[in-house]
Amino acid sequence: MPLVEVDGGSSAAIRLRAGEAVQLINTHGSQVVDTWCLSAADITEYLSVEHTRRMLGRLFPQEGDPLYSNRRTALLTLERDTAGCLHDMLVACCDKWLYQFYGAPPGHANCHDNYLHALAQHGIVTERVPNPINFWMNVPVVDNARIALNAPVSKAGDSIVLRALRDVIVIFSACPMDITPVNGEDRIPKSVAYEVMGDGR
Amino acid sequence: MPLVEVDGGSSAAIRLRAGEAVQLINTHGSQVVDTWCLSAADITEYLSVEHTRRMLGRLFPQEGDPLYSNRRTALLTLERDTAGCLHDMLVACCDKWLYQFYGAPPGHANCHDNYLHALAQHGIVTERVPNPINFWMNVPVVDNARIALNAPVSKAGDSIVLRALRDVIVIFSACPMDITPVNGEDRIPKSVAYEVMGDGR
Repeated sequence: MPLVEVDGGSSAAIRLRAGEAVQLINTHGSQVVDTWCLSAADITEYLSVEHTRRMLGRLFPQEGDPLYSNRRTALLTLERDTAGCLHDMLVACCDKWLYQFYGAPPGHANCHDNYLHALAQHGIVTERVPNPINFWMNVPVVDNARIALNAPVSKAGDSIVLRALRDVIVIFSACPMDITPVNGEDRIPKSVAYEVMGDGR
Repeated sequence: MPLVEVDGGSSAAIRLRAGEAVQLINTHGSQVVDTWCLSAADITEYLSVEHTRRMLGRLFPQEGDPLYSNRRTALLTLERDTAGCLHDMLVACCDKWLYQFYGAPPGHANCHDNYLHALAQHGIVTERVPNPINFWMNVPVVDNARIALNAPVSKAGDSIVLRALRDVIVIFSACPMDITPVNGEDRIPKSVAYEVMGDGR
């Protein structure tokens, strides 16, 4: 299937059937991608990082991990992860209130609104925005207590593959953050790309 | 105001006006209390641990900390904490799916349903259950990556005080978990108590 580009600071929602997968490519290497997943059958079931942490016994997902819903059902598998780096699941996505906090002018693009916009384009209206998995976001834990906001250590062309275990909707937001260095020291959001893969059966 | 007991395994919801506070007492010392907070004006605004972590730069709350909503507004202050121990904000509350996972018989009391029940008694119907702050729950981070489920280190009579910065609804669930040691090595949920305090002005 074709490679689809997602501009830096924008978002996309993708429907996957059980067995299908999506490869997400960090084209330039420095772009964080906030990622959500909803059960297509019932969008009140969503990928829950607080349930995933509890079921894995870990703060960060790794290649091979199932990713659990708020009903403790695995919706996705993180089938491949070429970077093998930290992927943050600890901090909320950026939103207009964060940019207000930083004194940015009103109207700054943000992952919260990107998520709602991408779903609305599929006819799905909600106001709930779960805590995403922030792929490639480098938020290490320090002294088992504090968190840091660092530039990514991933490289151009790094990719992940998410395999659907149920019929799901996956939402990607190429994070628009240009104030902290989470999208690289140049603080310039950049494009990523994705490709839907068959079930290989 | 009178001291109100909350039986082990049960829950209560309390309305606080801005300026009021509630003291929560760990009567027996070993009881985890899952705690949520909603804005009384709009219950889609709730205490969000993922926003609180980001705003504090830390995984665990401490005495004096503001506790932030999903709109990055401080709803509560953790004004007093006699134990000074870890208070978990990393794992989801227990729910019927967790007890299923452990092979417990159907119908086991759980914090998820306790939360919904306590709100329903105030005429509030919702299906969203945010990640609570689990007071006195001893879930340390190990090697900056893993989490452990340990018995509490708090002592009988330890207490916290939560001061409302807005008109809010606070929900307490004396966690019914009797399989893991989070409520003590004897795995017996026990009562706690709370008292609403005026604004002291």
